[in-house]
Amino acid sequence: MRPSKRQPDEMRAISFERGVSKHAEGSCLVKFGDTHVLCTASLEERVPGWMRNTGKGWVTAEYGMLPRATGDRMRREAAAGKQGGRTQEIQRLIGRSLRSVVDMAALGEVQITVDCDVIQADGGTRTAAITGGFVALHQCLSWMEARKMISVNKVLKDHVAAISCGIYEGQPVIDLDYLEDSAAQTDANFVMTGKGGIVEIQGTAEGAPFSEEEFSALMGLAKTGIARLVSLQQMAIG
Amino acid sequence: MRPSKRQPDEMRAISFERGVSKHAEGSCLVKFGDTHVLCTASLEERVPGWMRNTGKGWVTAEYGMLPRATGDRMRREAAAGKQGGRTQEIQRLIGRSLRSVVDMAALGEVQITVDCDVIQADGGTRTAAITGGFVALHQCLSWMEARKMISVNKVLKDHVAAISCGIYEGQPVIDLDYLEDSAAQTDANFVMTGKGGIVEIQGTAEGAPFSEEEFSALMGLAKTGIARLVSLQQMAIG
Amino acid sequence: MRPSKRQPDEMRAISFERGVSKHAEGSCLVKFGDTHVLCTASLEERVPGWMRNTGKGWVTAEYGMLPRATGDRMRREAAAGKQGGRTQEIQRLIGRSLRSVVDMAALGEVQITVDCDVIQADGGTRTAAITGGFVALHQCLSWMEARKMISVNKVLKDHVAAISCGIYEGQPVIDLDYLEDSAAQTDANFVMTGKGGIVEIQGTAEGAPFSEEEFSALMGLAKTGIARLVSLQQMAIG
Amino acid sequence: MRPSKRQPDEMRAISFERGVSKHAEGSCLVKFGDTHVLCTASLEERVPGWMRNTGKGWVTAEYGMLPRATGDRMRREAAAGKQGGRTQEIQRLIGRSLRSVVDMAALGEVQITVDCDVIQADGGTRTAAITGGFVALHQCLSWMEARKMISVNKVLKDHVAAISCGIYEGQPVIDLDYLEDSAAQTDANFVMTGKGGIVEIQGTAEGAPFSEEEFSALMGLAKTGIARLVSLQQMAIG
Amino acid sequence: MRPSKRQPDEMRAISFERGVSKHAEGSCLVKFGDTHVLCTASLEERVPGWMRNTGKGWVTAEYGMLPRATGDRMRREAAAGKQGGRTQEIQRLIGRSLRSVVDMAALGEVQITVDCDVIQADGGTRTAAITGGFVALHQCLSWMEARKMISVNKVLKDHVAAISCGIYEGQPVIDLDYLEDSAAQTDANFVMTGKGGIVEIQGTAEGAPFSEEEFSALMGLAKTGIARLVSLQQMAIG
Amino acid sequence: MRPSKRQPDEMRAISFERGVSKHAEGSCLVKFGDTHVLCTASLEERVPGWMRNTGKGWVTAEYGMLPRATGDRMRREAAAGKQGGRTQEIQRLIGRSLRSVVDMAALGEVQITVDCDVIQADGGTRTAAITGGFVALHQCLSWMEARKMISVNKVLKDHVAAISCGIYEGQPVIDLDYLEDSAAQTDANFVMTGKGGIVEIQGTAEGAPFSEEEFSALMGLAKTGIARLVSLQQMAIG
Repeated sequence: MRPSKRQPDEMRAISFERGVSKHAEGSCLVKFGDTHVLCTASLEERVPGWMRNTGKGWVTAEYGMLPRATGDRMRREAAAGKQGGRTQEIQRLIGRSLRSVVDMAALGEVQITVDCDVIQADGGTRTAAITGGFVALHQCLSWMEARKMISVNKVLKDHVAAISCGIYEGQPVIDLDYLEDSAAQTDANFVMTGKGGIVEIQGTAEGAPFSEEEFSALMGLAKTGIARLVSLQQMAIG
Repeated sequence: MRPSKRQPDEMRAISFERGVSKHAEGSCLVKFGDTHVLCTASLEERVPGWMRNTGKGWVTAEYGMLPRATGDRMRREAAAGKQGGRTQEIQRLIGRSLRSVVDMAALGEVQITVDCDVIQADGGTRTAAITGGFVALHQCLSWMEARKMISVNKVLKDHVAAISCGIYEGQPVIDLDYLEDSAAQTDANFVMTGKGGIVEIQGTAEGAPFSEEEFSALMGLAKTGIARLVSLQQMAIG
Repeated sequence: MRPSKRQPDEMRAISFERGVSKHAEGSCLVKFGDTHVLCTASLEERVPGWMRNTGKGWVTAEYGMLPRATGDRMRREAAAGKQGGRTQEIQRLIGRSLRSVVDMAALGEVQITVDCDVIQADGGTRTAAITGGFVALHQCLSWMEARKMISVNKVLKDHVAAISCGIYEGQPVIDLDYLEDSAAQTDANFVMTGKGGIVEIQGTAEGAPFSEEEFSALMGLAKTGIARLVSLQQMAIG
Repeated sequence: MRPSKRQPDEMRAISFERGVSKHAEGSCLVKFGDTHVLCTASLEERVPGWMRNTGKGWVTAEYGMLPRATGDRMRREAAAGKQGGRTQEIQRLIGRSLRSVVDMAALGEVQITVDCDVIQADGGTRTAAITGGFVALHQCLSWMEARKMISVNKVLKDHVAAISCGIYEGQPVIDLDYLEDSAAQTDANFVMTGKGGIVEIQGTAEGAPFSEEEFSALMGLAKTGIARLVSLQQMAIG
Repeated sequence: MRPSKRQPDEMRAISFERGVSKHAEGSCLVKFGDTHVLCTASLEERVPGWMRNTGKGWVTAEYGMLPRATGDRMRREAAAGKQGGRTQEIQRLIGRSLRSVVDMAALGEVQITVDCDVIQADGGTRTAAITGGFVALHQCLSWMEARKMISVNKVLKDHVAAISCGIYEGQPVIDLDYLEDSAAQTDANFVMTGKGGIVEIQGTAEGAPFSEEEFSALMGLAKTGIARLVSLQQMAIG
Repeated sequence: MRPSKRQPDEMRAISFERGVSKHAEGSCLVKFGDTHVLCTASLEERVPGWMRNTGKGWVTAEYGMLPRATGDRMRREAAAGKQGGRTQEIQRLIGRSLRSVVDMAALGEVQITVDCDVIQADGGTRTAAITGGFVALHQCLSWMEARKMISVNKVLKDHVAAISCGIYEGQPVIDLDYLEDSAAQTDANFVMTGKGGIVEIQGTAEGAPFSEEEFSALMGLAKTGIARLVSLQQMAIG
């Protein structure tokens, strides 16, 4: 029995609120249950130095957590003077995931920065960030299309979304909340496209090692879940 | 004529949403028009080293801005590796303001950290943070009272709230939004208590120096505005 | 009775020693009693990036304290690896104050950095720094005028000086020394021009909130004191 | 055809040189072809603060690269003033991998730090570091056993080793060198135990997304390869 | 001919002004011509962690330069966020030099920090700092003796002083000023005790390598010069 | 009697292994007994900003130590977030030493960075680094000569090598190992050219001050030792 009474293959309530930011070209407040991530996509003319004069653009991501997004207050990274290893790992993952569905030549020489800030955390912040970050990115591209800068359909090759799965009390389950995440034997994050292609897999044995069969069960759950996330994204995008 | 069509003595729509955080002992999403600040109050057993064994508590504040809270994306302070001078100035002001109405001996040897994170900025973030931070602090103290740790009435000596006033196109006005703030000749922030005592005054000539009479006009606006903010706080606290 | 036996409206012995630096274009060792601040004004061809090709110049300030300028040795900021919040707050104030009397177009595209280093501290270091920093800045501009780079009278619109006032044992007093500063109920810093215009006001309740009347008394003291500082500056400048 | 003329399932020449450090309790210079990593295991009495008085130990890892381990000289992280995101990601992975086979209660309240420094890089540094780090860790534990501090067999639950696999020119191959790594469509790192349990999986689409079948092919290669690495470890340990 | 018209063995005007700081236990403003260094010696009860409960004390030094102590303004190290290599090298040298004449057991478990801040630089700042730092240290020890904490004669084993020598236009000269220092072929700093023992030698070929004979000539100059510095110290100490 | 049973004028076994790096233009693994330093010389087109368009090149050095190169594990400088004072002092010394034999105009506008990383430490790491760094630098220049970029004989004016000498139990000895170094009364490092010119001398009294005669004895040992190091360099260079 899961603490939240959910079925093993049941995700939390998922919602996307587009256009929540007065300033950003694209934005989305994504909720996976009590995990709330505010994603903004900011268009900038400047690309990183190593991309200049290539005619290609770039998509990058940054990730942060408000200090009291979690059960105990965590030290503010700006006050600590650096981003921790976990933060860097997650923002690199978000950036890679979003770039996997973008045609950089079609985007042209601009940079889009997707900021994913966790307002409230209850497990699965990185998968929510990827999934909501895509919606913010899409809105930013639509903003550009409206200004005749690009064609969304040429820049975006597919949807991308992500979900965590894990083995909790011996049972493969999807979309772990914090209680499950802390107690799971195995924890895996999957990033997949709308067509079902795999973009990124990260599986970790928290306790005992896991078997290939267990891993396949998690991947099975993920495929179904991500398909559903993609259709929710489609509805949000309208 | 103000860009927002407001009267000189008309504040923006003000709202307080209490208890917005699942985790924090106290929280408040405060809105001054399009300026939105999420305030959380976190109770910690640990006081700073120099306060240990004094029997007294401490209230401190931290301030941050999401990178795209503003019209142009700003660099994330955690990525830059330090908090800027403006951030430090503001969080020191918030801390001093909140401490001015707290009896540290009645609080006992605990620390409350009030995090004020600007979700969206449109001028007046520091005054919104102080005004909403008070509501979050009050909820945290109520949480403590419910657990028989303190008595709110003994700890809190008064309300505290803040407002900006300025001279915009020769006219003293209250609660400047970003458009006014950028163009104001003089900009002043006032922090006052419920009884009308002054806690902090910061006045700056952005262009030409200002006169004592101009300053008095700003203070007059502030007194009326803060009285209204205090009554809104009272309604929010219930 | 003030610890120093001064009258409420009596400032400490004030002195300006111009040209104390062999290298700087302008310099001034300013003393407000036992508070000694060495101010140097350095002319640089380079303006900040955002000012380039505007034809306008810039005046900026930095502030520091020798580690044993104070009663207890403080950690050296260079060794700590960053400037504290108080330092940044003060150097921003000094810069704003000096800029308020400079015509940047008349200065032309150069930068003047005014370094204010506290050799010995006994309260009022920021007001001494502003007041002495003006003298150093003036000498730097004279140096430029002697080289036909500018006309001092076109660049400098007025004098600027600063003083602290506070309520000590219920009595409004001017130019607080450390003993008074530590015990004052209210502490306010005033920055004004030679013509009596107000450039900056910062008032803080250290203990109980203060009233508008008390604040007016402080401003009255400040006006008289700053008028005297300006005439002392005039004598120093010669 | 692979640039190195290897068969798809052929790893590079693997060697372990134990005891290469005069000072460290355990050490191993591991070579996967031209990738050379020096691993040292250092025993320290001090555990991290949050583990004190738990009776349990800790194993952690740090990773570094000499500036000219690579084709172009990279900036020294100590000179840059921080460890990059890639470095932190890798050292977190090494630490988790090694901890997965250690019984912390049997180890007792000590900390072992495994430093993995890349002397020369040609792809696969993280997998070489995990595989060689295990040998260094084992030698450190043997050193402890010789001093009657622990029993190696109680502390070490199994072997752990790692290998990279990827899809290079449409073909699943094992143990990618730098040339293959730069051109691979898909890149996956596998960490497994001697009994074949999976400890960590990280798969990334560098270009187009990959399919579940492709991923299975990579995992198949990894299982065989890791089994061989484990038997090489056993020979090295003697 | 030296730019300053001095004889090869002629030092600049040397002066020591003791007790210049209102706060420090010991202080000395030392001048070697236009090189002015403010030295303060601060007594602290706390010793570094690795010295606790040894019954022994410690003497350490820090060195800094005001930004416009030099011909061109240098970046403030506190603003740069770290002390440069030159600063660290110099402060380590000052600390070693002063410790060479202190009996740490006789000092007892306290720490004395000697801060050497260059107010104005014209070559030879490190040698002036050591020579003046000794006078500040002596005054601090006298302060302690007056409070029956130590006996100066037991703590201080000897005087210590320092001078630079160099080969300028083929001629060995003593106490180089900035003009000579920039043009010298060889530059050497000598630290010696009152009894003529050598504490530290640092010789550097700025252009062509130098010979043993040249080095001996420099050492000869240094011995005479340091003997004179020591007698000046004795007069200053009284 | 020396702990290593060596004669006072007997250096440890010295070896140079050239070309140990697959990637670097020049490299050398130098061993002075159990002190092992990996030196790589990296050619870069970019010179520091202040050298641009001068037609001259630059040689610089960086120094690092693997965390467990020493008897106790030291904190990794990249993790600590900065290079310590000792590291900076040493890398500045290596750079100056190598530059003393290079004709920068003949080198042309390129930069060579010599990285000296201590793999294992047993005293004398800086002198080994200079001596081996020269061999790596020479190989880099030969690499350039083979590509018709320069002529080695025009760029390199001489050999440069370094050795430490010290007074151990009252006896002047050469090439101190860690045991001797920790116990020496006096410790001196000498850097000299092939023709016997002195490039750098650093002598430090660790305990009591030393006399000019003692220092001469150390220099005598150094001259003989460096002559031998130079002939070993010549053999290594071939």
